[in-house]
Amino acid sequence: MESIKNIISCSKERMKNKIVTFSKFGDTGNGGITRLALSKPDLQAREEFCKRMKTLGAKIVTDDMANMYATFEGSENLPHIAMGSHCDSVVKGGNYDGILGVMSAMEVAETIVREKIPHRHPITVMIWTNEEGARFDPAMMSSGVITGKFDKAKMLASKDTEGMTFGEALEVSGYKGDKKNRINAKDYKALLELHVEQGPVLDDAKINIGVVEGVVGMVNYEFEFTGQAGHAGTVPQKNRKDALLAASEAIQYLHKELDKLDSKLVYTTGRINCSPNVHTIIPGDVKFTLDARHQDPEVIKQVVYIIKNIPSELAKCKVEYRELWSRETVSFNKELVDLVEKNASLYGYSNMRMYSGPGHDAQYASDMLPVTMIFVPSIGGHSHCEIEKTSLDDCLKGANVLLQTVLDIDKK
Amino acid sequence: MESIKNIISCSKERMKNKIVTFSKFGDTGNGGITRLALSKPDLQAREEFCKRMKTLGAKIVTDDMANMYATFEGSENLPHIAMGSHCDSVVKGGNYDGILGVMSAMEVAETIVREKIPHRHPITVMIWTNEEGARFDPAMMSSGVITGKFDKAKMLASKDTEGMTFGEALEVSGYKGDKKNRINAKDYKALLELHVEQGPVLDDAKINIGVVEGVVGMVNYEFEFTGQAGHAGTVPQKNRKDALLAASEAIQYLHKELDKLDSKLVYTTGRINCSPNVHTIIPGDVKFTLDARHQDPEVIKQVVYIIKNIPSELAKCKVEYRELWSRETVSFNKELVDLVEKNASLYGYSNMRMYSGPGHDAQYASDMLPVTMIFVPSIGGHSHCEIEKTSLDDCLKGANVLLQTVLDIDKK
Repeated sequence: MESIKNIISCSKERMKNKIVTFSKFGDTGNGGITRLALSKPDLQAREEFCKRMKTLGAKIVTDDMANMYATFEGSENLPHIAMGSHCDSVVKGGNYDGILGVMSAMEVAETIVREKIPHRHPITVMIWTNEEGARFDPAMMSSGVITGKFDKAKMLASKDTEGMTFGEALEVSGYKGDKKNRINAKDYKALLELHVEQGPVLDDAKINIGVVEGVVGMVNYEFEFTGQAGHAGTVPQKNRKDALLAASEAIQYLHKELDKLDSKLVYTTGRINCSPNVHTIIPGDVKFTLDARHQDPEVIKQVVYIIKNIPSELAKCKVEYRELWSRETVSFNKELVDLVEKNASLYGYSNMRMYSGPGHDAQYASDMLPVTMIFVPSIGGHSHCEIEKTSLDDCLKGANVLLQTVLDIDKK
Repeated sequence: MESIKNIISCSKERMKNKIVTFSKFGDTGNGGITRLALSKPDLQAREEFCKRMKTLGAKIVTDDMANMYATFEGSENLPHIAMGSHCDSVVKGGNYDGILGVMSAMEVAETIVREKIPHRHPITVMIWTNEEGARFDPAMMSSGVITGKFDKAKMLASKDTEGMTFGEALEVSGYKGDKKNRINAKDYKALLELHVEQGPVLDDAKINIGVVEGVVGMVNYEFEFTGQAGHAGTVPQKNRKDALLAASEAIQYLHKELDKLDSKLVYTTGRINCSPNVHTIIPGDVKFTLDARHQDPEVIKQVVYIIKNIPSELAKCKVEYRELWSRETVSFNKELVDLVEKNASLYGYSNMRMYSGPGHDAQYASDMLPVTMIFVPSIGGHSHCEIEKTSLDDCLKGANVLLQTVLDIDKK
């Protein structure tokens, strides 16, 4: 085993400087950021990215979805090794989700350049556009378009709350480039994405590095309860068809049944909409969503079985359900996963294999080339909120594992 | 007992004509209307009211809240007998709520004028401004201001969704008049309001006339459940504090406990708001309202006892509740209630005594002068919706009872 003393490391000071700098772009004043895709703060972050990468000698191109590629030439004519993530955030998000993957990739490149580490392959630092989907629905828009999951014309027509389309935002951003610059299977050898876990598992277990084996499969259903709206003061209780009562019974049913399944199953009834939602009117129609995720397709099948066995009537209301979408479990490239695990151990960092619950651009990209991810702990499991944080030490550890993995891939 | 043959009756044809005419103002094209307070359709309805009342010889004034008073002189210098209701509606409301009370009062006046029925007191047909509160919160705004329940300055500042204040809408309406014209205890002897029941009780029992004894007391509480938002894909189930799960448990608790109380109790959890309300995020905060109504204050006390005994924690979330408002049971003038009952029977109309669940301007006005109400059936109990309907026969029956009651009061 190589000794840790001889292994190159990224710079803690430079990492800190990147975190402090990028935290300014979209600063909410409460410790977090709002940096929606192609908004002014997003463009400021991209400009800073360009400035820093160009200073280090990178050549920068963008593709037709404004994904950015800052490339450092290799010594041979070989496909690129890419690493990166996104720099957009949700409204009142934190300073780590997405951008940490960009900053660690920048720091890895900076370490390679400053330490003059020889590499045969071109090394590319990437920014994905509109991963969050917080301004323009859906999430993971650009990787979805590149891998053919989303129709580009529909995506260009996706509107923000002001009525501006993604296509219009692209045009005025100054970052719209050529389709031929898209990451692809021929010109790229691998893609690595470092990301915060966004959950409490690593932090609870005091583990530094999550070796991500893939992204769990999921189903997303919408339930609808149809009753009869009526005036709160006039309709006798026995005559009512209260859709919110029905929905609350359904939530109880789902928890009771789903809690019997594997303990690694996560499921969420995150969105509820009640109509007409007036305090003096009996709810006539209520909808809520159910999101369920597990790495084992068998468990997801059991979830669907439970969904399909919900009573067709609750509280005298009609019960309906429909699948909004689903995804199969995505498994990352086994060789790359092994490399990440080896390198975490090489540095002496505690690590564990795990699946990602959230989706990431890496998951779509893994359809076309070898991909894996590296997770670092989210303190308290907080994410998509202003208190989201990863310790500087853990950020550095993640960057080091990323660096070593890039260098390993370069040798192959 | 007087014979029905000798009793004067309103005109079915004229009643029908009024219903058809007023249904045009704010017509949604789907059988209903949207006629928000002081909106263009509301002003059209007011103009039609003026035209018809002036043709019959009324003198029209408005007060500082744009309430309208069309007065037919009496033979003696006595206080007015008033009748009326409101002509605004909720969004996508029906053609009867409110406006039927105005149209029947118009028809009663028209019958008195055309049949040359002598009357000692001046007879006034009224329109209340902004009863629904659908454009400018709160409901029953004008009667609330006149009876000192609401602060006028605050009401003038109430904004619609476009940002226009009630005060601005008043100014441009052309119907803002003098404060001295307000209905008051000195110049008015009684106020009668005919209204649709807005519930299914009369229609279910096939009864023509509701003899309204008062308005039930009510409490309105808001419950809040504070958990911890988190990503749907990352937080293990056992670590979650899901505020929607807590809310659904609370809804079950309330139904279980409140269903043990008197069967005339009506209660509604009509509004629920979930934050952040995103399908991929565990609900961190959920609020819902509870509206409970009963004519017996003891039953309302039992409701409050149940509310206060809700567990302080459900599904590991903090449970809080707060009273948004309450009202005591309002009892209408006993003598007027008796007159309505006598007159319904006089015409041979089936009738029953009942309490109103919804609030009405009459309820606030009953603080200052003798007031009662007459209910007519809502087909299917539907109200505040486009299919709201009362049969023409029932509309006429209500108008006849109103007419006879006005004439009875005039004799006293």
